[in-house]
Formats: sequence, C-alpha cells, structure tokens
Amino acid sequence: MTAVPLRPRRMTPDARRAHLVETALQLFATTPPEHVSVDDVARAADVSRALLYRYFAGIEELRVAALGSVVRELVERVELRGGQLRPAVADFLTIAHRHRAAYVALLRSGSAVATGETATLLDGVRAHIVGLLGGPTADPLQLVTLRGWVAVVETATLAWLQDGGMARAELEEWLVAQFGAMTAVTAARTAAQ
Amino acid sequence: MTAVPLRPRRMTPDARRAHLVETALQLFATTPPEHVSVDDVARAADVSRALLYRYFAGIEELRVAALGSVVRELVERVELRGGQLRPAVADFLTIAHRHRAAYVALLRSGSAVATGETATLLDGVRAHIVGLLGGPTADPLQLVTLRGWVAVVETATLAWLQDGGMARAELEEWLVAQFGAMTAVTAARTAAQ
Repeated sequence: MTAVPLRPRRMTPDARRAHLVETALQLFATTPPEHVSVDDVARAADVSRALLYRYFAGIEELRVAALGSVVRELVERVELRGGQLRPAVADFLTIAHRHRAAYVALLRSGSAVATGETATLLDGVRAHIVGLLGGPTADPLQLVTLRGWVAVVETATLAWLQDGGMARAELEEWLVAQFGAMTAVTAARTAAQ
Repeated sequence: MTAVPLRPRRMTPDARRAHLVETALQLFATTPPEHVSVDDVARAADVSRALLYRYFAGIEELRVAALGSVVRELVERVELRGGQLRPAVADFLTIAHRHRAAYVALLRSGSAVATGETATLLDGVRAHIVGLLGGPTADPLQLVTLRGWVAVVETATLAWLQDGGMARAELEEWLVAQFGAMTAVTAARTAAQ
C-alpha cells in the first residue's frame, strides 16, 4: 500500500482543528475577523457547518482560537537574540503584517472581537515584550517606560498596517530610536533622584 | 414665596438625567462601572427603577452616558494655554484621577463596558489631544509620534491610577520630557531625509 495524501475528510481531530484555525487566519488576511462567519470558514475549509461545530461552539470561539495562534506566534518567535532590539522589532512586524487583519482586530478595542478573552491574549504579548526588555522591574517609572514603548509599537504598527505611508525599514529604525530616547529620559530622571 | 431647593421629585427631565449620570459617576469613583447595577444607581439617586428606565434603556446606556460625560470633560477642559504642555498634562491627570474608575474602564479593552461605543468615545479624546499637539499632520511619522505619545500618556496614567508608586508631579514631568524626546527623534529623522 502506497502512502496517499491525507484527505481533508480523514484528518485527525488535532489536524482538523489546526486546519480550521489556519483557514480562519487565511480569511482574516483579507477580511476583518468580525465579518467572517462560520459559513465562510466551513466553505473555505471544505467541511460542513456541523463538522465545524464539533470543534468550535461558534464563530467567537474560532476567532479567539485563531487570534490566540497569532499571539502564540508573537510570543514564541519574538526574542532578543544577542540583546539586539532591531531584529526583534523586525520579527514582530513580520508576524503582525502576515496576520494583519487578525492583529488589527486584536488591537482595536472597538472591534466586535475584542472581548475579555482577546484583551487577555493581547496582555500576554505585552507582558512577553516587557519581559524581554528587562521588566518587570521594581521601579514604577522604568516599568511604565517599557509598557509605554510597547504602546508606541502597537500604535505605530496599527498605523503602518492600516494607513500605510511609512516604509517598513523606516518604522523599524524609528521604533528602535524611540526606545533609546524613552529609556534615556527615564534613566536621567532615576539618576537625578 | 421664597425659593426652595429643587427637590429630587421635581427635577426637570434634563436635570434628572444629569443627576442620574452624576450619581453613576459618583458610584464609579469607588466601584468599577461593570459592577454598578441599575438598582445601585436608582438607590443612590433616591429614585425608583421605573423612573431610571424612563431615562435610560438599561445600565449599558447609563454607563455610556456617564463615560461620555468624562470624555466631554477631557475634551472641553484639556487645552494648550499659551502653548504650554505641562498644564494640559496636569488638567488631564486631574480629570482622569477624579473619574478614575470610569477612565480605567474606558481604557481597559477587556472591560465589560468597552463596547464599540466606549471605544469611539476614547478615540474622541485621542483625536482631541493629537489635534492640540499640532496634528493631524500630513507626515505619517509625525502623526504616529503624536498618537504614540498619547498611548504613552494612557499607559502611564493607567499604571498611576491602578498601581500607584509614582508621584503625580514626577509623572507630569516625565510625560512632558517623553514628549520632547519622542518628537526630537522624529524631527531628526525627518530632517535627515
């Protein structure tokens, strides 16, 4: 018996679940998550609604799973190799751009999908980046500086993904320069005390 | 006939509505908005549930009205007098502190009250501050700098209101210094092009 490609109808439950999440993410690449329905995902994945509902209670649960997979990718892949900030910023922007509709939905508190669960997901990304940068630190102003820079990263990334008008390399350099400037202000204040 | 104090039962509709909003805000000063019920507001305002429902369809509508009044106060009272940033920051922090539970609820996207409507309210505050600071500007990086600084203000204010540990004067000075540092980074990049 020769190996045959795994047909969609014969996927293991884990593979099926992953396939549905991946399908949802592909749809999110062109359509805001709040406008993607169970029917859209079922059709794109070539499965029945009934099958999809065996894996997810509804579109909201599928959205949270898909956004959660983007968050996991950010947390697992963004790291400070050799203490260099710029490659980490580059990795962050690459992942945010690849999943831009999902990332924009995560950030937009007005989005229909920004429930308590997605906010918790986003807090996970924030805590990861603050952790990479040396926090949590005991000094409130240093911690606020790290969190503030993460907020600048989110704001700038959102503008870049939505409005365009900035070259990616320019954005990377600017974010790294802002980190230097913001931490210098705080270091000067901490030293002056 | 001598003037008598307006009794609650005899308020005009506008005064009644304002009184209910003010009562809700007073409750929000000590209790997160998502934990304040119609019954809590009716009891504190000394009116029946039925009367409250004549003015607001439910607690969500009352919350949005109350948070909206905080936003209006921020938009109307925070201005750049004589081009000075520090007094504007001071006014902002005063209002955010006076209505801290409401402001924290506005900012927390995970909050039960951060619906599309409250997100729109918050966008109004952001646009107002960016407008004060000279935006909207045609340069994407300058606009992102202003929006980014507003994100830093929100992040720092949230930390100050929730965690404490920072003196208010220190926070004011730090926010003004960060504005100078962030805009300097952008000016240097724009000039270099």
